[in-house]
Amino acid sequence: MSKPTPLSGFPEWLPAQRMIEQNVVERIRTTFECYGFAPLETRAVEPLDQLLRKGETSKEVYVLRRLQEDPANRGDDSLGLHFDLTVPFARFVLENSGKLQFPFRRYQIQKVWRGERPQEGRYREFLQADIDVVDRDTLPFHYDTEMPLVIGDAFASLPIPPVTIMVNNRKVCEGFYRGLGLAAPDEVLRVVDRLERLGPEKVAALLVETAGATDAQAKACLELASISAGDASFVDAVRALGVADPLLDEGLEELVRVVDAGAEHAPGLIRAELKIARGLDYYTGTVYETQLRGYERFGSICSGGRYENLATAGNERFPGVGISIGVSRMLGLLFGQHALTISRSVPTCVVVALPTEELRPACDRIAQELRRRGINTEVAPAAAKFGKQIRFAERRGIPYVWFPGADGAADTVKDIRSGEQVEADAAGWQPPADDLVPLVSRG
Amino acid sequence: MSKPTPLSGFPEWLPAQRMIEQNVVERIRTTFECYGFAPLETRAVEPLDQLLRKGETSKEVYVLRRLQEDPANRGDDSLGLHFDLTVPFARFVLENSGKLQFPFRRYQIQKVWRGERPQEGRYREFLQADIDVVDRDTLPFHYDTEMPLVIGDAFASLPIPPVTIMVNNRKVCEGFYRGLGLAAPDEVLRVVDRLERLGPEKVAALLVETAGATDAQAKACLELASISAGDASFVDAVRALGVADPLLDEGLEELVRVVDAGAEHAPGLIRAELKIARGLDYYTGTVYETQLRGYERFGSICSGGRYENLATAGNERFPGVGISIGVSRMLGLLFGQHALTISRSVPTCVVVALPTEELRPACDRIAQELRRRGINTEVAPAAAKFGKQIRFAERRGIPYVWFPGADGAADTVKDIRSGEQVEADAAGWQPPADDLVPLVSRG
Repeated sequence: MSKPTPLSGFPEWLPAQRMIEQNVVERIRTTFECYGFAPLETRAVEPLDQLLRKGETSKEVYVLRRLQEDPANRGDDSLGLHFDLTVPFARFVLENSGKLQFPFRRYQIQKVWRGERPQEGRYREFLQADIDVVDRDTLPFHYDTEMPLVIGDAFASLPIPPVTIMVNNRKVCEGFYRGLGLAAPDEVLRVVDRLERLGPEKVAALLVETAGATDAQAKACLELASISAGDASFVDAVRALGVADPLLDEGLEELVRVVDAGAEHAPGLIRAELKIARGLDYYTGTVYETQLRGYERFGSICSGGRYENLATAGNERFPGVGISIGVSRMLGLLFGQHALTISRSVPTCVVVALPTEELRPACDRIAQELRRRGINTEVAPAAAKFGKQIRFAERRGIPYVWFPGADGAADTVKDIRSGEQVEADAAGWQPPADDLVPLVSRG
Repeated sequence: MSKPTPLSGFPEWLPAQRMIEQNVVERIRTTFECYGFAPLETRAVEPLDQLLRKGETSKEVYVLRRLQEDPANRGDDSLGLHFDLTVPFARFVLENSGKLQFPFRRYQIQKVWRGERPQEGRYREFLQADIDVVDRDTLPFHYDTEMPLVIGDAFASLPIPPVTIMVNNRKVCEGFYRGLGLAAPDEVLRVVDRLERLGPEKVAALLVETAGATDAQAKACLELASISAGDASFVDAVRALGVADPLLDEGLEELVRVVDAGAEHAPGLIRAELKIARGLDYYTGTVYETQLRGYERFGSICSGGRYENLATAGNERFPGVGISIGVSRMLGLLFGQHALTISRSVPTCVVVALPTEELRPACDRIAQELRRRGINTEVAPAAAKFGKQIRFAERRGIPYVWFPGADGAADTVKDIRSGEQVEADAAGWQPPADDLVPLVSRG
């Protein structure tokens, strides 16, 4: 066969990058567990009818068939790969509601797939890290304030630039549009959601054209979307637009709570950004997007919101709120800028040099002694000249080479960065803590 | 919509089981890294022509299409979900050979998919944990002896029954069949591979029928397959059958090395089992299967072998040896027997009780102080009666409830298992190490 080539939209990291990804996922997971979120994984596939409940995403779904399947036998039980982790989570909650304790807090770190045409920063397969809380019938609002704090802590644990979490509330938008006298607030929201891509003039024209707005109404919608503040002052700015509606009041009150909680927890983390709309249909209140500072033009790396009706079947209803870190998206951006590095490309800390092939069992015993004490160790692949064995370690960034002592002499270990070589005993030698495992840092 | 139901063949664990799985994967990963294997993940999809290179598995492949795709536009670039991690790894090595250091040791822990009809213990989606070593042109044999030792250590780190790794070598079988005068050793191997399911009589009949064996030859093949030993004594048993062939000699010598290394590393871990054949085409020498003691009738939970020609393109050739733990399969068996338990169903160690909703910010600060020191903490969902808040913790197995002191009194923390309640300071209190994170143990 010929040499294979990459598939567009399906990123694959080299081992050094995968070690960075693993380190990042580990830190995110530790933060999630610190807040009491329990881990969950759902299967990769969902019945198509589940995936298509919210029609907007239908074109992105990958559908499965068995290669040898009889086409005539394909029923309505067709399966597709999940395109996010919220829809499968809602399904899981409904399916297992009798076995779960509510409120149910879970995190979920898994690949998702979208069959869209690949473009810069858009993947067909990517890793997401989600947290959600759902409760039976009603979910207290304080969870909406907690979500961005957890995410803020997770990002703060990573060697990356600071983030800004931008928050809005659909009740603010919908109440405002209604108070303005607009009949189709959903359609207005969908148009305003395109503000970043289309710019204000085109959005104003579209609002008039497709959402039945007058020029003045369109202008007011754009004024609302331009409001942004790191504290509760956004309320005055909205009030100054002179629109009144009970839903608007409710939304403003909720949004103030999120912004205030953020200001107490981590000043500068959260901003009210009234242009944030989120394309997805299922959000009903708070919505979140997140910018990595210095990477604003690449869009959100972490988004989510409150959904009242996603997990609903018959008489059962589990409103929820959640937020999702786009791990692949974030790492793709940072790798692209060489903004993350790792101290070596393998987990190995020590290579045991091999004087002769006959001594392999003795070298294996040294390695095993080091491993027993948690020191990642390999034995050299072959009894080549020691210079070649040192280069084996060097090329991988492995810091230490261990030399078994000949004829009863003591073993020695060499730090191949400094050249320092000292006598050592495999039962007691310990590398400095910074050399024990590969270190991830800002590049 | 109506309440969703499970999909046959796509297992989903509840959070407590997922915590066990995560713990198990973490221990396996730690062992792999201890031996210097670097992590890798490949995309979930491969071009169909890659997946179908070894024709035997074609019926198991799930093929993908985009929901809105024009059927007329579907070219020969169709994609399928990978059914193991070895074929994608071989493809990755060929694609990235210029960027990798050889010998290349990697581990890979990912889901795989097989579109087969579900049956007991057979999943359509399951988690595998693989290690492989590949090198350019030739790969030293000592890696064949190392593989089962790594796997033995990985299993020994888990709270599960002991395992037996059963080893054979295709050169033994092929050389023996050739020495017997059989013309189609591959076909003989395929028939012998069905010994477990069909029994010796049917296999003997099939050997005569489809592999051109005489009754005596068939009998000799079955005698070879019946040989089993925990040490090198199997060599004498094979010699006693009176067949001579250079390939047989080579295979026996290799197999002795694997068994001897096992006996030194972990007595009782490895057995030569000459009936082990492995269905897959790509193995060329050593083959491994693994039984969990007490679960022998469920088949192998960890398999692999040496493959000389899987990663080959043009002039480049990367022979390898690898082994794969069937994580889902093993956990499915153990969960089915309630043989693994965890001390609680959430990561949370402490619930901070909420006297009134107004005190939530103060309770959040206590929680944050505990989290800062790595103690997983939740604040109670609502300011219910304390009895209800304690039951919230109890139902999840959370060991501690924290009571903020009223009116300047000290805080107290209650171990809700013993009822013991003591004064405590969030800046200094530490739970016993055994309570810090959920503990996994044999059930």
